[in-house]
Amino acid sequence: MIGFIGLGIMGSRMAANLLKAGFEVTVYNRSKDKAEELLNKGAKWAESPKEAAEKSDVLFTMLANPSVVEAVSLGEEGFLDSLKEGKLWVDCSTVDPSFSRRMANESEKRHLRFLDAPVSGSKLPAENAELIFLVGGSGEDLEEVRPMMEAMGKSIVHQGSHGMGSSMKLVINLMLGQTMAVFAEAVSFGEAIGLERGTVVETLLGGITTAPFLKGKKNKVLEHDFAPEFPLEHLQKDLQLVSQTAFENNTAMPIVNVTKEIYALAKQQGWSKEDFSVIYRLFSEKK
Amino acid sequence: MIGFIGLGIMGSRMAANLLKAGFEVTVYNRSKDKAEELLNKGAKWAESPKEAAEKSDVLFTMLANPSVVEAVSLGEEGFLDSLKEGKLWVDCSTVDPSFSRRMANESEKRHLRFLDAPVSGSKLPAENAELIFLVGGSGEDLEEVRPMMEAMGKSIVHQGSHGMGSSMKLVINLMLGQTMAVFAEAVSFGEAIGLERGTVVETLLGGITTAPFLKGKKNKVLEHDFAPEFPLEHLQKDLQLVSQTAFENNTAMPIVNVTKEIYALAKQQGWSKEDFSVIYRLFSEKK
Amino acid sequence: MIGFIGLGIMGSRMAANLLKAGFEVTVYNRSKDKAEELLNKGAKWAESPKEAAEKSDVLFTMLANPSVVEAVSLGEEGFLDSLKEGKLWVDCSTVDPSFSRRMANESEKRHLRFLDAPVSGSKLPAENAELIFLVGGSGEDLEEVRPMMEAMGKSIVHQGSHGMGSSMKLVINLMLGQTMAVFAEAVSFGEAIGLERGTVVETLLGGITTAPFLKGKKNKVLEHDFAPEFPLEHLQKDLQLVSQTAFENNTAMPIVNVTKEIYALAKQQGWSKEDFSVIYRLFSEKK
Amino acid sequence: MIGFIGLGIMGSRMAANLLKAGFEVTVYNRSKDKAEELLNKGAKWAESPKEAAEKSDVLFTMLANPSVVEAVSLGEEGFLDSLKEGKLWVDCSTVDPSFSRRMANESEKRHLRFLDAPVSGSKLPAENAELIFLVGGSGEDLEEVRPMMEAMGKSIVHQGSHGMGSSMKLVINLMLGQTMAVFAEAVSFGEAIGLERGTVVETLLGGITTAPFLKGKKNKVLEHDFAPEFPLEHLQKDLQLVSQTAFENNTAMPIVNVTKEIYALAKQQGWSKEDFSVIYRLFSEKK
Repeated sequence: MIGFIGLGIMGSRMAANLLKAGFEVTVYNRSKDKAEELLNKGAKWAESPKEAAEKSDVLFTMLANPSVVEAVSLGEEGFLDSLKEGKLWVDCSTVDPSFSRRMANESEKRHLRFLDAPVSGSKLPAENAELIFLVGGSGEDLEEVRPMMEAMGKSIVHQGSHGMGSSMKLVINLMLGQTMAVFAEAVSFGEAIGLERGTVVETLLGGITTAPFLKGKKNKVLEHDFAPEFPLEHLQKDLQLVSQTAFENNTAMPIVNVTKEIYALAKQQGWSKEDFSVIYRLFSEKK
Repeated sequence: MIGFIGLGIMGSRMAANLLKAGFEVTVYNRSKDKAEELLNKGAKWAESPKEAAEKSDVLFTMLANPSVVEAVSLGEEGFLDSLKEGKLWVDCSTVDPSFSRRMANESEKRHLRFLDAPVSGSKLPAENAELIFLVGGSGEDLEEVRPMMEAMGKSIVHQGSHGMGSSMKLVINLMLGQTMAVFAEAVSFGEAIGLERGTVVETLLGGITTAPFLKGKKNKVLEHDFAPEFPLEHLQKDLQLVSQTAFENNTAMPIVNVTKEIYALAKQQGWSKEDFSVIYRLFSEKK
Repeated sequence: MIGFIGLGIMGSRMAANLLKAGFEVTVYNRSKDKAEELLNKGAKWAESPKEAAEKSDVLFTMLANPSVVEAVSLGEEGFLDSLKEGKLWVDCSTVDPSFSRRMANESEKRHLRFLDAPVSGSKLPAENAELIFLVGGSGEDLEEVRPMMEAMGKSIVHQGSHGMGSSMKLVINLMLGQTMAVFAEAVSFGEAIGLERGTVVETLLGGITTAPFLKGKKNKVLEHDFAPEFPLEHLQKDLQLVSQTAFENNTAMPIVNVTKEIYALAKQQGWSKEDFSVIYRLFSEKK
Repeated sequence: MIGFIGLGIMGSRMAANLLKAGFEVTVYNRSKDKAEELLNKGAKWAESPKEAAEKSDVLFTMLANPSVVEAVSLGEEGFLDSLKEGKLWVDCSTVDPSFSRRMANESEKRHLRFLDAPVSGSKLPAENAELIFLVGGSGEDLEEVRPMMEAMGKSIVHQGSHGMGSSMKLVINLMLGQTMAVFAEAVSFGEAIGLERGTVVETLLGGITTAPFLKGKKNKVLEHDFAPEFPLEHLQKDLQLVSQTAFENNTAMPIVNVTKEIYALAKQQGWSKEDFSVIYRLFSEKK
């Protein structure tokens, strides 16, 4: 039996794909209404994280941030003491590498097994079972859950020991922030030298120098609509985390350290809650 | 009749695709041996640029840099005075926007038509007719040569008036330099925090945050082999050109201005002639 | 007889100090009213640059920028053809090194001697004869005018051959722009972490980490009054000139290349005509 | 009675100036030999930090870093429990603002008073009683020790509440690191464009754009001798602390974030233990 805790935009779609592939799944979410559709498709309901854990051989979590993961696993009603010895917890939430290592440690203390397995990909890849799993922990444990991950993703990469999945996720968010900023700068440059914005965007998106995720930012840039998908302040926080982690590991990162301050200047404009593609405004607006 | 001057790595493949599509082509190259294969496929040989021009309704040039274009078109044996009135010159070379505008002007003086049409894509896309044409000049003129471009490329984008094709090419090289540097920084960071280099590279290349052209740089980064495809000093020169052009057009570009200096530091290491992916060494080497 | 062309804020004070030291001086300025005070002190008036040149053994120019220098020396009514063979032109204007070398060349063609001798220091040092002369050209020629320079300045430094005086001036403006920006960033940081702005400013100005010229920017920062002494757009132009010159001389300059773009962002805020200390607003303003 | 703990390069000179001004001073240092000279001048010896504290109305500490301060004050043989109620501890060590606030808190718990009072200035200013005290804490407490500080420094600035002295010290080290790097970049630029290194250095040091402390770095730059006064790795750590603190206080700092990475690149060259002026090598060396 698989347990699944956290049925937000990502988690609900991932659990649905598990069901579709024929797995038995017990789900839990803070608000039950988000589970209805899954229950109709055959999922079982757990009244609490503890109950979900008790029934599970493998327990997936897909939660908002480290503090939520900590509360749900180790808090008063936390599930970690309810998982049976030898069972496996797979945390797909985006957290710090050191947090993942702490969770691995807490699991070991209780004779449980643990994998950090954050995913690359957002809403649509989650729906289409095209996520990429970035996995830290034992290869054997990974093999055990590989069929489940294959039901939810198109690619499963073993990154190394505990925390390495989360480390890789940090690398990916670094790419995300940098690539967005570079694209914004390039489009602004194109406009400034007389090219038509739409043409620049189309040409870049059609070529090999532009990361695929930027297709999803096309309308934001074209229509100056920066409704948040990934808020600027979160991205900027991740870049600061990269800066601090790089310092601790003695590695120089000149470009990202500038990029993060350009995002910081955008924060000073009052755009913290906007989508991080709002960085385009900083480059393109002139008074 | 189509004329084609410049049969290097790119030009020879482009001319071959024109022949394959059934066009009649007269070719010229400084050293005739590079033309042999094309002559076998049915191309006609011109003994000089002038001769190529005299026979052509449309004349393509694909040359190394502005000074070569200038010498071949306007120099002592230059072709421009040999093109018949009303004929069309399509320059696919990578040059500055202002140079393109000057060539357009020289053409007009002689009652000729001109398009700047640099391409995005290297050896393989040239071979497979998958280039992207970035065209500046009149839309009517573009329509006239569209079937020829379609024989050589997968996408033809009209960027605007004369010089705009070359402007867009500058935007693309800007993306190229930035994206390479960002990728190099990200891989170095991954390694510094304990991830395995090969895994980081594979994971990034498999995901949506990484530009497709970086697949071609994979082995360079993995094997520290920086044999030149696009030499660092050329890329760095393009970035300085971007900086200067941005200044003249009153637009701020903080990130690329750092990136260009990181490449400049790499030049100070003596790596000017290496492939520009050598920027990875600057980040990853530690003494 | 000394000739002096250009009686602006700087030139009028420099000429006054020459008179005070007992030199005979013939002056010229586009608008004569700026010369009145000097004429009262014993200066002679020339009706044109030509007339000033005809009477001079040594001719000083202190003009706004290269194009004015070019017009006054080589233009229709230019003085250069009126200087007698063997005479000496000392250009104290702030110009590019290459412009200085061109003027040296034009002088040589006419069997004249030339020194580029821009000054470090503004209104007050000019008044108090405390300027620093940065001299490019022959040491012998410098010795000839040293007594005159000593009447106007406190320090005369021979930088090397023609153009080297102007090169050194570029280095000084580079320091100026960088140091201002660094100070602005430091004060903003101090305020952001809870220190009182006035205290930070006073403490820094009283210490050894802060360049003396910043005392003159104190009130601008404290009172947010950025009435121009040295307009942002000029400073930013100088930094771009540094960037371009560094590129041509194969030297990496990562910090100044960022700084110049921070000034460029300030230009995008509409602050081109404000004093360059307005960079402080960019760091300190938050919406 | 004044107590003084920590008789290194700075502390020994500060204590000597207290004696010279007629104050009674009890001193303690881990190794007694460093105290001999002071004992000859009339200082009393304490066998332990505790003993120094028991006898003191005001206790100064001048120690290497936060962990030493913590060990000496709160460790097993720590002095804090031996200071009598109402007495005053003045910590002149360079530490984080948050560490200072913690020490203030530990003092208050014990009904003691506390000032953070790091100093600006190195060996020579310490000897000549020309230090600048940056003081955080109550103004009343400051007045009580002002005469003592006046015996050791030329300027005493009350920066605000607890931690603000240490905050100001962070601002000063930020200036230090930035200004050094900017100077190094400017000298390298001067050389690259053909000026003579010695002349550039002299001209800059004689002018108003250059911070006075750089006079002390002159020989390092001229003779490429980077024997450490302030090691690169410490300075770079301070800049990272600035970056992190700026992030926490929501303020953008683009320039210093680049500068710190340029120092990080110098670390990657193996220069961590050299004087931070070694940054000049990074700019000026070319292979």
